[in-house]
Amino acid sequence: MTTIDPLRATCPAPRAETERVLLGHGSGGRLMAELLAEVIAPELDTPGPLEDAAVVGLGDTDVVFSTDGFVVTPRFFPGGDIGSLAVYGTVNDLAMRGARPVALSLAYLLEEGFPMAELRAITASVAEAARACGIPVVTGDTKVVGRGAADGVYLTTTGIGVRLPDAWPSASAGVPGDVVLVSGPIGAHGTAILSAREDLGFETAITSDSRPLHGLVAAMIGAGGADVHTLRDATRGGLASALNELAEASRVGVEIIEADVPVPAQVASACELLGLDPLHVANEGCLVAFVAPRSADAVLAAMRDDPAGREARVIGHVTGDPGRVTARTLVGASRIVDMLVGEQLPRIC
Amino acid sequence: MTTIDPLRATCPAPRAETERVLLGHGSGGRLMAELLAEVIAPELDTPGPLEDAAVVGLGDTDVVFSTDGFVVTPRFFPGGDIGSLAVYGTVNDLAMRGARPVALSLAYLLEEGFPMAELRAITASVAEAARACGIPVVTGDTKVVGRGAADGVYLTTTGIGVRLPDAWPSASAGVPGDVVLVSGPIGAHGTAILSAREDLGFETAITSDSRPLHGLVAAMIGAGGADVHTLRDATRGGLASALNELAEASRVGVEIIEADVPVPAQVASACELLGLDPLHVANEGCLVAFVAPRSADAVLAAMRDDPAGREARVIGHVTGDPGRVTARTLVGASRIVDMLVGEQLPRIC
Repeated sequence: MTTIDPLRATCPAPRAETERVLLGHGSGGRLMAELLAEVIAPELDTPGPLEDAAVVGLGDTDVVFSTDGFVVTPRFFPGGDIGSLAVYGTVNDLAMRGARPVALSLAYLLEEGFPMAELRAITASVAEAARACGIPVVTGDTKVVGRGAADGVYLTTTGIGVRLPDAWPSASAGVPGDVVLVSGPIGAHGTAILSAREDLGFETAITSDSRPLHGLVAAMIGAGGADVHTLRDATRGGLASALNELAEASRVGVEIIEADVPVPAQVASACELLGLDPLHVANEGCLVAFVAPRSADAVLAAMRDDPAGREARVIGHVTGDPGRVTARTLVGASRIVDMLVGEQLPRIC
Repeated sequence: MTTIDPLRATCPAPRAETERVLLGHGSGGRLMAELLAEVIAPELDTPGPLEDAAVVGLGDTDVVFSTDGFVVTPRFFPGGDIGSLAVYGTVNDLAMRGARPVALSLAYLLEEGFPMAELRAITASVAEAARACGIPVVTGDTKVVGRGAADGVYLTTTGIGVRLPDAWPSASAGVPGDVVLVSGPIGAHGTAILSAREDLGFETAITSDSRPLHGLVAAMIGAGGADVHTLRDATRGGLASALNELAEASRVGVEIIEADVPVPAQVASACELLGLDPLHVANEGCLVAFVAPRSADAVLAAMRDDPAGREARVIGHVTGDPGRVTARTLVGASRIVDMLVGEQLPRIC
């Protein structure tokens, strides 16, 4: 297991070092955005805003399509494991484009010598999560590499789905005046992973929020339809990075009220101990939405009726100041909320 | 890089050892079939024949859906690289279900410290291969793990497509009397990878056959329609494993004429040197088809008109002897053609 020094690790890397891949390039923050914008997107000819999932016209059907790799360590953590996480993660990426997920694929990358019993347990967890979501795993792949060429097992799940009626959420569809909602308390997943890493000498009773959000999204779309402009699950890079990505893609700003962001006491104290910002800590069952003001109350009520949105709340609004994300503090000052820079915590998902 | 002793590595593993994942579980042969049948399929509740791709009803459209991981070493080899291989591999899996590929997703798993220049080169190769096939990469994911937790870069590509008119090929659709065709010479990919591994002290001028087969399949379906019963690209485990999988899924037998199987002289001599059976060596641009006799001539002619099928030929026929694959030898004897058992050559694709 990699030991990290969170204080050093959050420092931005010097520019010359970026000639090699850094852990921070997988963080979901600024370095990753740069990698995508400067290396991958230009080659692949895919500019445009970053979405959690693509929409592809196939015959008469708009298919929503998303892929995600999972390398979390430890593989079993409070509140979940790599198997259920891989299912929920991809289900959630589809849901963020307003899709009803329909089918999943599952690719295993296994290290020679990996215990068969653990492979069985992880596969059982995939199966249970897929059944709970009503979404079958219909195809897959298995590769094995030699000892030392992987760390146990990595999974890649890909999902396809169809759009719900009246659902057009997109990272680029936020407009000034939209109400900003979150579906629940932030920071639980990252804190649970931290607590499960013995070498950090840190323990807490908090469990990951890893859960599927497609039911919650269906309820939100049912209540707000096309007024649900933008959805994003705040995974790697946390709520701060999600808000910055959406602000950039929609060419808008966001102002949040710091006191209204729900941070559980255990997350707050863990972050204080480790010098982390809860806004940068990963979630796996928490979404942020931009909703037209006229539908915000109805959408919020629908969220609170769903088990995954019981503690949903308004945390701010969308402004006309492109790319600028700020937080109003308790004393009335305004501070910049930046994307995660560098790497806060590797192999979180 | 893993050094292998091909003679030892092809021995079946003792049963007790299978409590851990072996390299052979990724071989595409007998051990892998057992892993899928005994560990993965029962948990996931997905019995039925193994197909290269799943068909999923989405709205009014039958979507063909396939995923594949790529861990090949070396990443650049004569005739291709991990980037183009990842595109063609998934394009081919879609084509084997009679699909016109429409879009791809691409998930990177990167090791910290991987040279950015190589990442750029691999991404450029993905892009060039995708453009050549007319199939865009529409979504993706990037994960980074610490040094020592991967070997440079692994890719997972997933593809979606729609069925060609009159195309219903399936691993389970072969019937006795069908003509067995191959699209070209066998063994080039595996031999090229072997020759590129310096530690094997072995060299040849042969290049991988890595190429897309969707155009060839479209030509075959155009000529034979629903008479093209079964298609499979003979990748890991080689032609022998592909024939055994199809025989099992279709509950038929196969008899091939050994002298009619096209084995290039360089492949034959490399295999003799290393104690390998060319029928077990991986291909990445060669398919095997079961076609109803009345359409076999037309399909063969269409194959030969396509650059990927220039050297296509008939190699045998389907029999009524379930699961039994045999080769008629030059002297008129008949020998059993078994699936690859254990591991012949790891990390071939």
